[in-house]
Amino acid sequence: MLDFTATYTDQYQITMSQVYFHKGLQDEIAVFDYFFRDLPFGGGYAIFAGLEDVLEAVMQLRFDGKDLALLQNEGMDAAFLDYLQDFQFTGTIRAVREGDLIFPNRPILSVEGSIIEAQLLETLLLNTLNYQSLIATKASRMWLSADGRTLVDFGLRRAPGTGGYAASRAAMIGGFDATSNVRAGRDYHLPISGTMAHSFVQRYDDELEAFRAFAEIRPHDCVLLVDTYDTLEIGIPNAITVGHEMEARGEHLKGIRLDSGDLAWLAKRSRAMLDEAGLDHVKIAASNQLDEHVIKSLLEQNAPIDLFGVGTSLVTGRPDAALDGVYKLAFANNEPRLKRSENIEKINLPGRKQVFRLGYPDGSFYGGEVVALADEQDIEVMYHPTEPEKSLALERFELHPLLHPVIVDGARTTEPQSVQEIAAFSQAQLRQLPEEFKRFENPHRYKIGLSKALQDERDRLVQEHRA
Amino acid sequence: MLDFTATYTDQYQITMSQVYFHKGLQDEIAVFDYFFRDLPFGGGYAIFAGLEDVLEAVMQLRFDGKDLALLQNEGMDAAFLDYLQDFQFTGTIRAVREGDLIFPNRPILSVEGSIIEAQLLETLLLNTLNYQSLIATKASRMWLSADGRTLVDFGLRRAPGTGGYAASRAAMIGGFDATSNVRAGRDYHLPISGTMAHSFVQRYDDELEAFRAFAEIRPHDCVLLVDTYDTLEIGIPNAITVGHEMEARGEHLKGIRLDSGDLAWLAKRSRAMLDEAGLDHVKIAASNQLDEHVIKSLLEQNAPIDLFGVGTSLVTGRPDAALDGVYKLAFANNEPRLKRSENIEKINLPGRKQVFRLGYPDGSFYGGEVVALADEQDIEVMYHPTEPEKSLALERFELHPLLHPVIVDGARTTEPQSVQEIAAFSQAQLRQLPEEFKRFENPHRYKIGLSKALQDERDRLVQEHRA
Repeated sequence: MLDFTATYTDQYQITMSQVYFHKGLQDEIAVFDYFFRDLPFGGGYAIFAGLEDVLEAVMQLRFDGKDLALLQNEGMDAAFLDYLQDFQFTGTIRAVREGDLIFPNRPILSVEGSIIEAQLLETLLLNTLNYQSLIATKASRMWLSADGRTLVDFGLRRAPGTGGYAASRAAMIGGFDATSNVRAGRDYHLPISGTMAHSFVQRYDDELEAFRAFAEIRPHDCVLLVDTYDTLEIGIPNAITVGHEMEARGEHLKGIRLDSGDLAWLAKRSRAMLDEAGLDHVKIAASNQLDEHVIKSLLEQNAPIDLFGVGTSLVTGRPDAALDGVYKLAFANNEPRLKRSENIEKINLPGRKQVFRLGYPDGSFYGGEVVALADEQDIEVMYHPTEPEKSLALERFELHPLLHPVIVDGARTTEPQSVQEIAAFSQAQLRQLPEEFKRFENPHRYKIGLSKALQDERDRLVQEHRA
Repeated sequence: MLDFTATYTDQYQITMSQVYFHKGLQDEIAVFDYFFRDLPFGGGYAIFAGLEDVLEAVMQLRFDGKDLALLQNEGMDAAFLDYLQDFQFTGTIRAVREGDLIFPNRPILSVEGSIIEAQLLETLLLNTLNYQSLIATKASRMWLSADGRTLVDFGLRRAPGTGGYAASRAAMIGGFDATSNVRAGRDYHLPISGTMAHSFVQRYDDELEAFRAFAEIRPHDCVLLVDTYDTLEIGIPNAITVGHEMEARGEHLKGIRLDSGDLAWLAKRSRAMLDEAGLDHVKIAASNQLDEHVIKSLLEQNAPIDLFGVGTSLVTGRPDAALDGVYKLAFANNEPRLKRSENIEKINLPGRKQVFRLGYPDGSFYGGEVVALADEQDIEVMYHPTEPEKSLALERFELHPLLHPVIVDGARTTEPQSVQEIAAFSQAQLRQLPEEFKRFENPHRYKIGLSKALQDERDRLVQEHRA
C-alpha cells in the first residue's frame, strides 16, 4: 500500500549524510543499534513487530525523481545528488525474530553499513518498529486477558490515519484472530470479519425487518447488532425470532453483538434468553471501549462473551501512545562509540553485540538475557549493567542467541514470513515466559546483564571520554 | 503517497452494502453526518483537518482488481461484484471549510448519496478526519502557547506508522512552521527543517571537530546540537568558537539546539554566553518531550527560546489518542432518521441540516452556533438541545453558514487548497474566537443550539419511535 521512498525520513538524516559525503566518509563503516528504554503499559514484556515491513521497505528504498528534485530545490549540491541517485542499502541487518519478546536496554536490531546508509534508515526503522511493537504488545495483553476467546480488531475508524493499516497487522502478531480492516486483510492475508452497524438497523422502520434482510442475504455469517433500541426488550427477542426462522430454513444464526450498556449484565441476560429459546449455538460478541483491563474484568464476572471487538485502545496503544525506541551509534570511525551521559543507565552499549536469552533445558525461560560482544564465546557470568557487584552465574542455563542476520551485504538472507507464522512464534515464546512477567500489576522485572568483556569495553570508553 | 482503494474500510460496510444491493436499495438516497461528541485535551475548541485528503481520495475511490478478487474469495456474489466494479462516488458532500473551528454535537460534514456509496465512505472519512483533526487541534494549542515562536514537527520517528505522513500536514494546519518529515514536505509542499543528531557528534572524537565539519558543508543552515557532552562547559563554548570562525568567513551560525536538561535554565545561560561572545543573532532551539503546557511554562519563565521542536506529544495527540468522531445516518428510506438513545444528548439530529455561526459585525465570534434544517430561513431563536426552556434570541448576530458543497453529484466544486492557505484561514478564525474559549484550564463552553424547526422535527421522530 505504501510507496516508501528514501525521503520518508527526517531532514537532518540527509544533511548529515551530505556532510559525511563531502568529508570523504561515505564508505566508513558504522553500526547502529535499535533498542527502547521503558516497557509500555507498565507491563513485564513487549512484542517485537514491524520487521518484515521494514525489510521489504529497505530492500526497495531509493530516492526517486521527485525526491531528487525536492532535494535539489532545497539546495543540495550536484555531487551529493548524484550519490543519492545511486543510493541503495548494501549493508547488513541483524535482528531479533519478529514476534519475539523484547525488553529494555538491549539491542533488538542492529544495522551495519556505510555511515550514510545506516543513518538514512533511522527514521523509517523507528517509525515502523516503534508503532507496530507498541500495538502488538497492547494486543498481546488483550490476548492474555481474553483467555482463548476470539479477538477482532475494529480500530480503523479511530486509528491514526493510515497507521491503522499496520496496526491491523501488529494486532494479529499480538494474538488477534481477525480484523475488520479489509485492505489490511487483503495485503497482509489476514482473516477479515465484521457484523452490522447501527445505521443498518436505523435505515429500516423496524429492527426485525432489518435483521430479516441481513439474514436473508448473509445467512452464513449473520451477527445481529441488538442494542439500537433496547437490547433485552427488543433486540434479543427480534434476534431470537430471526434465529428460529433461520433454523427453519436449515441455517444458523451466528451471533449477536452488544455495543453499549453494562456488557457483563447484558451478556448474561442475553445468553439466558438465547439458551432458553434453544439457540445455545448463537455466539455473543461485545464491543465498546474495551481494553485488556475491561476484558479481564468481564471474564472475572463470568460474562458469557465469545468474541471481543476492540478499537480505539488497540490501534492507539492507549494510554502510552508511543514506544520510546531509539537508534544509537555503537561503532564508527574504526572504533566502538558511546554517548556519554550523566546517567550511567543512559549510556549506550558500544560496539558490535549479541544478546543471549537464558533458558532451561525444557524450553522455558528464566527471565533474563545477557548482552555480550558479538564474537564472544563461553560467557560464564553476567553483571548488572550499573551495579557491577551484582552478578549471576550462567552455567545452569542454555544461552540462545537472539540477533540473526536478515540482510547481509544488501541481500535478504531469510524467507519472508507470513503474519500467521510470526503470530504463532510470538505466542509460543510468550508461553515460555514465567507467569510473573505477564501479570498487569507490578510484573516481575526481567534481568538484562552484561558480559565481562562488554562491561570492560564500556567502562574503558567512559574512562577515555573522561580523560 | 497512499494508494487508497475502496477496501480501505471496515468489512461490514461492504456486507451491509451487499444486503442493500440485493434488497433493491442501491439507488435509495441517504444522508450521513460526521460529528464528534467531546472536545479533545479538555480544550474549548477543535480544528477541522483532513478534508482535502478525503476529497482527493473520494474522487479516485474504486475497487481495483485485487479488491474484487479478495471479495470474491470472501464469498461475495457475482452480481454484487459487478456492481462494485463500477463503483464510484456520485453523491454530494457538504463540509465546514478545512481549518475552521469545530465543536461537539453539530454536523461538520454531510454526505448525501445512494445509501451504498454513503456507507462505503464512512471508514475512510472517520479514519482521516478523526486523526488529522486531533493533531491539528494539538498543534493549535502549541501555537497558542508558543506566542509567535517557531514550531517544528520532529515527530516522524514516534509517529503511528505512516500516520506520521498526515500528522505533519495536520501540524501545519494547526500553526506549525515546518516539519522534519521530508516526504510529507515533498508531497504537501511544506517547509522542511532540521538540525543535527547526537550520532553526528559521537562519530567524531571531538565535538568541535564535528561542529566544524557541519559548518563547513552546511554554512547556511548550521544549527549545532550542544548537549552531547556538557551543554554549558563544552557545547556552548564549542559553538561560540565555530560561530566566530564562521563570522570570520562572512558566514553566520544560525542556531544551537538544546535537547536535554532543564531547558529554561540552559536557554538563559546559553543566551547570556552567546550574547557575551557577540553572537546575539544565534537562535536557540529546544526539544525533548515538549507539549503545549511545557512550552507555556518555559515562556512564562522567560526562557529565551526561539524555536520549539515537538515530536511524540504532537503526532500521537497525547493524552487523548483519538477524536471520537462518528458518522450517523440522518436520512434514508425517504425520511429523516434518528438513533434513539436512553440519553437524549446521544440522539442524533435528523434530516438535512445547516449550521450557522453567530458573529458580530466586526467579524469576531460570539461563541455559539445554531443548527437548523437545511432549507430554513430567518432563524430568530436558538434552543438548548436538551433543555428547551433555555433559548437565545439571534437578532443581534450575523449568521454565517458553515456547511458548503465541496462535491456535487460526484464532481468537485471547490479548488483544492494548499496547506498554507488552510493554515492561514485556521489562524484567522481562531483569532476571532474570544479568549475564554482558548484557555487551557476550564475553557468557556461554546453554545450549540437548535432552531425551532429542527427541534420540532427531532421531537416528532422521538415520539414516533416511542409509539
